[in-house]
Amino acid sequence: MKNLSDLVYGIVGFGLMGGSLAKAIRENVLSSSCAHGSIFASDINSASLTLAKEQGIADEIFPVSGVDEMLSQCDFVFICLYPHATLEFLIQHKNSFKSGAVVTDISGVKTEICSHLDEFVSGNFDFIPGHPMAGSEKEGYVNSSGSIFKNHNYILMPLAASKPENVNLFKQLVSMMGFTRIVETDAAVHDHKIAFTSQLCHVIAGALVSSAEDSQITAFGGGSFEDLTRIAMINAPLWTELFLANKKELLLQIENFEKSLDEIKNFIITEDSDSLKRCLENVREKRISMGKI
Amino acid sequence: MKNLSDLVYGIVGFGLMGGSLAKAIRENVLSSSCAHGSIFASDINSASLTLAKEQGIADEIFPVSGVDEMLSQCDFVFICLYPHATLEFLIQHKNSFKSGAVVTDISGVKTEICSHLDEFVSGNFDFIPGHPMAGSEKEGYVNSSGSIFKNHNYILMPLAASKPENVNLFKQLVSMMGFTRIVETDAAVHDHKIAFTSQLCHVIAGALVSSAEDSQITAFGGGSFEDLTRIAMINAPLWTELFLANKKELLLQIENFEKSLDEIKNFIITEDSDSLKRCLENVREKRISMGKI
Repeated sequence: MKNLSDLVYGIVGFGLMGGSLAKAIRENVLSSSCAHGSIFASDINSASLTLAKEQGIADEIFPVSGVDEMLSQCDFVFICLYPHATLEFLIQHKNSFKSGAVVTDISGVKTEICSHLDEFVSGNFDFIPGHPMAGSEKEGYVNSSGSIFKNHNYILMPLAASKPENVNLFKQLVSMMGFTRIVETDAAVHDHKIAFTSQLCHVIAGALVSSAEDSQITAFGGGSFEDLTRIAMINAPLWTELFLANKKELLLQIENFEKSLDEIKNFIITEDSDSLKRCLENVREKRISMGKI
Repeated sequence: MKNLSDLVYGIVGFGLMGGSLAKAIRENVLSSSCAHGSIFASDINSASLTLAKEQGIADEIFPVSGVDEMLSQCDFVFICLYPHATLEFLIQHKNSFKSGAVVTDISGVKTEICSHLDEFVSGNFDFIPGHPMAGSEKEGYVNSSGSIFKNHNYILMPLAASKPENVNLFKQLVSMMGFTRIVETDAAVHDHKIAFTSQLCHVIAGALVSSAEDSQITAFGGGSFEDLTRIAMINAPLWTELFLANKKELLLQIENFEKSLDEIKNFIITEDSDSLKRCLENVREKRISMGKI
C-alpha cells in the first residue's frame, strides 16, 4: 500500500481549486517532519507558481511546456482545468503519466469526459474521475485556501478498471484533506444530481440578480437575497461551459423547478391559504430532513 | 429629548423577534449602571415570559389579559405579532397607550395596516411603522438573540403626523441595537421592495426544496443548495399570511424572476454560449455592485 505522506502530487492548473487542493495536502498530509512526499505544480500563470513556491506550497514548479516532465514523476495527479480543457489535456498527455499513477480531474460535468475514455485511458495509469464539492466566488491561486474543503462532500466515479487499492488511497487522501462525506457513483448519476444541487442553484441565483430592478435593492435586504445570490458572483466562462455540457439534465431540473414555482404561484393567485400553508410546512419538513443546516 | 436609557420599553409578542429586540435593548441600551429604563413583556406563552424574567431580560411580565396595564406605562412599544394580529391589536388597544408613547410594529407587509390607519391612529401616541430586516429559521423566545440585528437594515415608514423627534429617537435606538443602515420610505415602496428581497426569495427557496427528488440529494451538495434553501425552513402560517397580504407585488416579482429564468434557459436550449456568458458576466458585475458580500 502506498504511503500518502511519501507520494509526489502533481497539480495541473494552479488556480483557486488547484491551489486549495495543494494547500490542503500540504497542511494535512505532508505536514509531518517524517513526510517525504512533495507537491509539483504546473500552470500558464507563472506568477502564481512562483508565489506558491515562495510560500512553500509547491516544491517544484513547471511551465506548461514542461508539464510532461512533471507528470512523469507524479504518483497522484489532479487535473484542475475547465471541462473541455481537461479532456484535451488527458488525450494529449496520456503517454506522459508515471506508470501506476492515480490520475483524477475535478470537472463539474462527467459524462462528456467519460464518453471519450477510449481516447486516453490505458493500463499504464489509473484514471478515477472525481468532484470535490466546494468552491468560492473568488478566483485564482491568491484566493485559494486549504480549509474550504472542511466538512464538504467528495464524489468519486471509479471506472470498471480502477484498482480498489487506488480508490481506497483516494478516499483516505480526501478524508485527510477535510472532506467528510465521500460518495461513490457513476458519471450519469453525478451529472443528474449535480444539475440540481449545483447548476440549477447557479441558474436561479443568476436569474434572481438579473431580475433585480436596481443594485440599491440590498438596502431592503435582510439576508435572504444575499444568501441566495452569493453564488451569482460567478466565473462566467466556466459556468457557461458547465451549463452547456450538462444541457439535458440541467433543462430537466429547471423545468421541475418551474413546476414547483408554478404550484406556489397558483396558491397565491387563488389565495388558497390552506394549500399554501400545507406546501410550506412540507417544504420545511423536507428541508430539515436534508440536514446540513 | 427623551433619554433612551431611561425609557420603559414594552414588547407585545415575546417570540423570536420580540425576544431578540428585548435582548438587543437590554445589552446595548440598558446595560449601564446609570440606566433607569426597563423592559416589559407580554405574550400568550407564560413559560417564555417567566424565562425572560429569570434571565433578567424582562423586568415585568404581563399575561395577555394584563396588556392594557402594561401599555399604559410604556414609552416605546414594539408590537411583534403576525400582520393581521398586529392590525387587530392596534385597533383593540388604541386607547391604552401612554400619552406621547412611540408605538411601532415589525410586520413584513405594511400597506394593509396603513390602509386602516384611521381606525386606530390618534394624537395620543405616535405610530411609526417599522421593519427590522433580520430573522432566523428558528422560532420562539428560546431561540432569540440580541446579536441577530448586527449590520442589518431597519426600514422606517413614518406617517405624515409622526414627530421628527420621535423618528430621530427611533433611529438612535436601532443604531444602538446594532442596525447599521436605516432606510426611510413609505408603505407602498416597502411592500414593493420587500416582495423582491424577502418574499420572492422565500418562494424560490420553497420551490427549490419542493422540486428536490429526494432528501438524500445533499450528499451531492457543495454549499449552493444549502445556501439557497436555509430560509425554506419557514414558519408556514406566518409566511402564508405575508405572501397573501402582499399578493399583487409578490406575483409581479415572481413573474419578473420567471422572465429572467426563461432568458437563461433559452440561452441553454439554443446553446448560445456567447449570450449566456455575457448574461453571467452582467449578473456577476451587478451582484458585486450590490455589495454586502
